[in-house]
Amino acid sequence: MKNMVYIQSGGPTSVINTSFYGALKEAMRHPDKIDGIYGSLNGIEGMIDDKLIDIRKEDPEQIELLLQTPGSILGTTRRKLPKDINDPLYEKVLNTIKKREIKYIFINGGNDSMDTCSKISTLCREKGLDVIVVGVPKTIDNDLACTDHSLGFPSAAKFIINTINALSMDACCFKVGKVHICEIMGRNAGWLTACADLLPEETRPHLFYIPEVPFDVEKFLVDVERVYKEKGYVMVCISEGIDFERANKNSRVDGFGHRQLGGAAAGLCEIVERRLDLPTRGVEFSLTQRACPLAISKVDREEAIKTGEIAVQAALRGETGKMVIFKRVSQNPYKIEYELADVSLVANAESKIKPEMIVDATRMSDSFREYIAPLIEGEVQLVTKHGIATMANFKKVMVR
Amino acid sequence: MKNMVYIQSGGPTSVINTSFYGALKEAMRHPDKIDGIYGSLNGIEGMIDDKLIDIRKEDPEQIELLLQTPGSILGTTRRKLPKDINDPLYEKVLNTIKKREIKYIFINGGNDSMDTCSKISTLCREKGLDVIVVGVPKTIDNDLACTDHSLGFPSAAKFIINTINALSMDACCFKVGKVHICEIMGRNAGWLTACADLLPEETRPHLFYIPEVPFDVEKFLVDVERVYKEKGYVMVCISEGIDFERANKNSRVDGFGHRQLGGAAAGLCEIVERRLDLPTRGVEFSLTQRACPLAISKVDREEAIKTGEIAVQAALRGETGKMVIFKRVSQNPYKIEYELADVSLVANAESKIKPEMIVDATRMSDSFREYIAPLIEGEVQLVTKHGIATMANFKKVMVR
Repeated sequence: MKNMVYIQSGGPTSVINTSFYGALKEAMRHPDKIDGIYGSLNGIEGMIDDKLIDIRKEDPEQIELLLQTPGSILGTTRRKLPKDINDPLYEKVLNTIKKREIKYIFINGGNDSMDTCSKISTLCREKGLDVIVVGVPKTIDNDLACTDHSLGFPSAAKFIINTINALSMDACCFKVGKVHICEIMGRNAGWLTACADLLPEETRPHLFYIPEVPFDVEKFLVDVERVYKEKGYVMVCISEGIDFERANKNSRVDGFGHRQLGGAAAGLCEIVERRLDLPTRGVEFSLTQRACPLAISKVDREEAIKTGEIAVQAALRGETGKMVIFKRVSQNPYKIEYELADVSLVANAESKIKPEMIVDATRMSDSFREYIAPLIEGEVQLVTKHGIATMANFKKVMVR
Repeated sequence: MKNMVYIQSGGPTSVINTSFYGALKEAMRHPDKIDGIYGSLNGIEGMIDDKLIDIRKEDPEQIELLLQTPGSILGTTRRKLPKDINDPLYEKVLNTIKKREIKYIFINGGNDSMDTCSKISTLCREKGLDVIVVGVPKTIDNDLACTDHSLGFPSAAKFIINTINALSMDACCFKVGKVHICEIMGRNAGWLTACADLLPEETRPHLFYIPEVPFDVEKFLVDVERVYKEKGYVMVCISEGIDFERANKNSRVDGFGHRQLGGAAAGLCEIVERRLDLPTRGVEFSLTQRACPLAISKVDREEAIKTGEIAVQAALRGETGKMVIFKRVSQNPYKIEYELADVSLVANAESKIKPEMIVDATRMSDSFREYIAPLIEGEVQLVTKHGIATMANFKKVMVR
């Protein structure tokens, strides 16, 4: 018996189940090499607690729906594994591997998940188990190192760009406009926040504040006031990762900063109202930006399927401790090649917007726009029933 | 000269320019009866300040793009007109009507805008002007009286339903789930909040709190705790219009209630965290729900075009002081007829969810679902350029 297990880890994206789809379709093409195709429930937790489901028992129609189902169909986790591979927890993982005769492990996730990938790979090697561990890149934040971009980022970017396009049309139509502050995900990287720079002049946000540039609340207020005077309304994109606490301290606003509740947008709206006496509207894109399947990029979907396939092919070739990465070999026409990188290199690094891609708070560089543009190309048609996109519904039959 | 002027008023929707499209295309079919086709900039403000643009000068290609352009292309206003028709402001409106030889006035909006419609209609009649005033229904809140539903509501509902569908898939995939509180628009009516009840069992929100049912924060906490214990996560839909201040007072939380910033969702998240010690996530759908064109309902689009046409036809027949309304004459297959209602009846009423449509906080009735279902049917394909929906861009040539 040579079984495989697929693990989804970290925050979901709108295409996280699409790379899983690619992997399991590819696995099904190799019945001679892969017997059981299992899914680990709730990330690495399923390996610790021996909670695996048998994917071969799922309805083929439901498997097709993975292509448009956000959220991790197998469940996910944010649990970080201990450093010491002699920790008793790893014994449990090893027990599951042995009991379920696991030969191939696929871990789909971002930086933290690649850390898990690296640890499990090291564990198996040091314990002398002939087990292959391959990483599949995923994060809307686009902060994974070693790869041109990450799966999920293009669709989240496309959703954000199209939504801000619409919000700009909404914002500019009032005689007395507001300062609109849109708060966007990305942790320490501004990729998602800056991507609306690709919009045409009429709907492009006026100001961008990303974690790569130190945030200065006084400069921010000057920028906002200047644009408001000129345009009569302001569209601001801020990253959730800007140094807001410092902004708060600098502005000496007491009893303020419920970041966990209203977030940076709400906080900055309050500062703008107090200091500039301008009307504001904070818009947090929140979970919608990573989950909403209404703007899945065709490129993202195709690459996600291919990445799943490549991961399985690499595993069957015996590659281990590696993550699938994208190398952009041509910009026009856009073309990537799929390669492999050591997961330990990926796990401990973070990819941010390069300084040369940033002009100032009002503009990104041409190179930034050229980088993003091909990723958001193409629309996908969702399968719907009475106007509602159909979500995959798994039976989740436990492996016994 | 018999000229027409079209006025967009109140909060925009994703199809507000679609009914305008229908009206101006119909007007263009009657060059014998309508000479100038004008747009009033920023709602009634354009009539007060004589700021009209000549729609015939716009590029036909841009006019076609109105079908997918959110925000009011002509600009909008929330200005409420004075009661006294002898107010000097009305003199200005009359001057514009006379100077520009306006025969037909179309006012597109919700309750407040129908009040404007009613006042302008009365004004013209009392001043002996042979001017026709016709209302075009619009509001995502769906709270307009006399009509089966309002334009813009179906597309907003479709966006919300599909987004909550995705958020539910995202919410249920963590081992330690959160209490997700989604805050949805609708003022004093819960239509948009309750519409996610149409989702299938797997992604249907667990709890709904709408303005039609008095909000009891203690009952809310009991409900949330019960669902969390059972499911491990909770999806809650709350209307922006629930009596949140009272909730706040009841729960005796001091230094709290920045409604204008974080809104009801943020406030209730804080209460849940303090009282139940459960992790929360507040999601405000904010302006995205009314502007995002990614889920325009085909039914909404078709009805918006038709409504614009019907409004012009009614005006040409000499109907005045009326708003186009929808009467549902058949449920299966869904069929509406277009009729006219006196704008004064519409202006001073509000349509809310009927008591018999509400079962309890966990469920709407079959009649509610049957009412909503046909409205969200059908998808529209957006014209895109490099993955971004193309927005109409008007030259706005002033009428001189």
